[in-house]
Amino acid sequence: MLNETTTQSPHHVVIVGGGFGGLYAAQALAQAPVKVTLIDKRNFHLFQPLLYQVATGKLSPGDISSPLRGVVSRNKNTKVLMGEVTGIDPKQQKIQLHNEELNYDSLIVATGVSHHYFGNEQWAKDAPGLKTIEDALEMRRRIFLAFEAAEKETDPDKRRAWLTFVLVGGGPTGVELAGSLAELAYRALKEDFRNIDTSETKILLLEGMDRILPPYTPELSAKAKASLENLGVTVQTSTLVTNIEGNLVTTRQGEEIEQISAQTILWAAGMKASGMGAILGETTGVELDRAGRVMVQPDLSVAGYPNIFVIGDLANFPHQNDNGKPLPGVAPVAMQQGNYVARLLKKQLQEKTLPPFHYKDYGSLAVIGRNTAVADLGFIKFAGFPAWLAWVFIHILFLIEFDNKLLVMIQWGWDYLTCQGGARLITNQSAKSPQSVAKEVVGVR
Amino acid sequence: MLNETTTQSPHHVVIVGGGFGGLYAAQALAQAPVKVTLIDKRNFHLFQPLLYQVATGKLSPGDISSPLRGVVSRNKNTKVLMGEVTGIDPKQQKIQLHNEELNYDSLIVATGVSHHYFGNEQWAKDAPGLKTIEDALEMRRRIFLAFEAAEKETDPDKRRAWLTFVLVGGGPTGVELAGSLAELAYRALKEDFRNIDTSETKILLLEGMDRILPPYTPELSAKAKASLENLGVTVQTSTLVTNIEGNLVTTRQGEEIEQISAQTILWAAGMKASGMGAILGETTGVELDRAGRVMVQPDLSVAGYPNIFVIGDLANFPHQNDNGKPLPGVAPVAMQQGNYVARLLKKQLQEKTLPPFHYKDYGSLAVIGRNTAVADLGFIKFAGFPAWLAWVFIHILFLIEFDNKLLVMIQWGWDYLTCQGGARLITNQSAKSPQSVAKEVVGVR
Repeated sequence: MLNETTTQSPHHVVIVGGGFGGLYAAQALAQAPVKVTLIDKRNFHLFQPLLYQVATGKLSPGDISSPLRGVVSRNKNTKVLMGEVTGIDPKQQKIQLHNEELNYDSLIVATGVSHHYFGNEQWAKDAPGLKTIEDALEMRRRIFLAFEAAEKETDPDKRRAWLTFVLVGGGPTGVELAGSLAELAYRALKEDFRNIDTSETKILLLEGMDRILPPYTPELSAKAKASLENLGVTVQTSTLVTNIEGNLVTTRQGEEIEQISAQTILWAAGMKASGMGAILGETTGVELDRAGRVMVQPDLSVAGYPNIFVIGDLANFPHQNDNGKPLPGVAPVAMQQGNYVARLLKKQLQEKTLPPFHYKDYGSLAVIGRNTAVADLGFIKFAGFPAWLAWVFIHILFLIEFDNKLLVMIQWGWDYLTCQGGARLITNQSAKSPQSVAKEVVGVR
Repeated sequence: MLNETTTQSPHHVVIVGGGFGGLYAAQALAQAPVKVTLIDKRNFHLFQPLLYQVATGKLSPGDISSPLRGVVSRNKNTKVLMGEVTGIDPKQQKIQLHNEELNYDSLIVATGVSHHYFGNEQWAKDAPGLKTIEDALEMRRRIFLAFEAAEKETDPDKRRAWLTFVLVGGGPTGVELAGSLAELAYRALKEDFRNIDTSETKILLLEGMDRILPPYTPELSAKAKASLENLGVTVQTSTLVTNIEGNLVTTRQGEEIEQISAQTILWAAGMKASGMGAILGETTGVELDRAGRVMVQPDLSVAGYPNIFVIGDLANFPHQNDNGKPLPGVAPVAMQQGNYVARLLKKQLQEKTLPPFHYKDYGSLAVIGRNTAVADLGFIKFAGFPAWLAWVFIHILFLIEFDNKLLVMIQWGWDYLTCQGGARLITNQSAKSPQSVAKEVVGVR
């Protein structure tokens, strides 16, 4: 065991997950009279809202990742542990890792969600999702290899398939990916090829609902759609994907069945809870929702276990509105929840308490392309260049908070002036040798 | 076939390899009345002299890579082909790729060298080398996992092994890696851990010859050694590595045999020609040296085939000095050779010729750490801060040449002020899941 909590020891807060929720909790506890252990499978915090820019070769993984130890190195009460939690004993107040156990006084679980395929997990190999750095590099590899393969292809049908990109899911990730891909194909790569005209690239965004960005107002959805179409993206709403096999996507729009031949299919739909949800369900008996997220109490704790909290994407918090809809899985919710639990713990140490958690919605923003975004700040909705500027400003602000990612700002400035991306590499993180990648491209003929 | 060279077509120059040599040749031919095809296995040019900074988490892969298509996109006579050459037919003037053939009028081979293990290829898994982006990310993964594992380890001997880094080879790569590791362990990570003191890290640089940086003068070697020792590196010269197995390095220094227990062993020694050397040897009968490099004529052509040229690290050019020693495998040699062959081809099209290639040595530079480098510019040798400044200036100059890597400059400026690296991520490009990496670290106990 790494530690023994005795009666003399300070209150030990264990935080599982170094995303926005976990990290905000840790930061808010930096000066508190507690001992904090922050556990994550990875050694870095990932700025997930910009992951799609790694997938399209605009940013490098390092630009949107901050080593966790570096972020909390000044918090003298905080220890970082790289590892994966495999079990919880809520009665004994212990968590299990692979080869060790850890006692806690309070436990904050913030392990988030991953994408899923609505029971069609076999689609994953043909339509990769976007949740980790490795996912983004795999997308990047596929995107840039597709252009390389198209350049070599002489058969017009096959070439068209290489130049067809299908994005499944019209939420923020799908919209931002589509916009970014459009800029890549129609601007950044325009002069780079000799046999193909990258402006013939077809980018299809498929959404099952009747509009993209369903959490936004219908007017903003319409503006986002118009902006995407203006960039060259084909937006198909009310379109369900019924099958993905090899390079064939089958869709159904009403009664109409269609088959699309596309070598690059990217998944931006579906969400399921991380494994900690099930572990909490089994050990505490807490109710989980259909996606496996934990139904939390108004103070974000788990029913019956007031010292176990679940925050961020993994939490289903239905208390705020009359309709009982859970809060959306976005960074601001996680940040505010992390802050709330930290404040609550500090109060509890003084034998005080806090009113229930209340999310303050400052609005939503999604970027569509250079100079184009949509914003819904509640009291005001706007789109176009002002929204884009707001988006850039807010993202830089948050990036700088953890790790002085001045670089990203400069990279964006540079990209903005030149329309070039900074990291358009095909690397083969999937353990393939350069030879096999080359073969793969050559082998498509 | 991708092209048919008829008598009407312009002279077709095929360049194999997009490193410094190949890219300089392509750039020098941009305005010439020729058709150029640039072939590379990868889609990017790699600024190899800074690869060690990716390995130690200072720079991101994207910072030192430039997409080849982007670099030559303005050269209207140039086509980029991503692929691997598998054969040459020098009589028919054809090269084979995996699924295609290409005719050439002139062929420039610039595929470089890779590291090797002096016949002990089984050492590779325990002591990875540094030649590709993937190599650098693997080194980065091992380096940062070692600190994570040490943080968890309670057995003092095992912890010491995790905090011991052995670098084999005292050439520029080994020296620069050692310096960079020292700054990482003794400065950047100092505040990041709670159970270990990273200043207890042991960094051992082993060199078989009697001094490090053997191509430099003995005075500069001595200065480099003193600088490294000042940073905390243990430098052992006249030390041969006789075995590497698991985490055990066996060395021999004179009669003395020693075993060092180190979890992180990095290879910076040995060099062998890329596969194109053997292909050229078989098909043209050209002589190869012991490392498999091609013995070239005074005009860098292959004996008997005046339209096949070999440049850069793959060429053994022994003509310049009386002692017949080949030119060193450094970027300036490759650049000047690429330029020379391009100029020679342009002259030949006008039925003129050029005097034999002559390398103009502007000197050598190796960086040891922040503020410290050694320089040998022929007419002047210097070390310390001025040499470091010269090193930074020259590297930025060349980086900017291909791709405006302003970012690197800013990143360096930032690192210089903060002593922090910008890309200290553990990513698992070796197809391991985050879970298995976590297990790996946890599993060492």
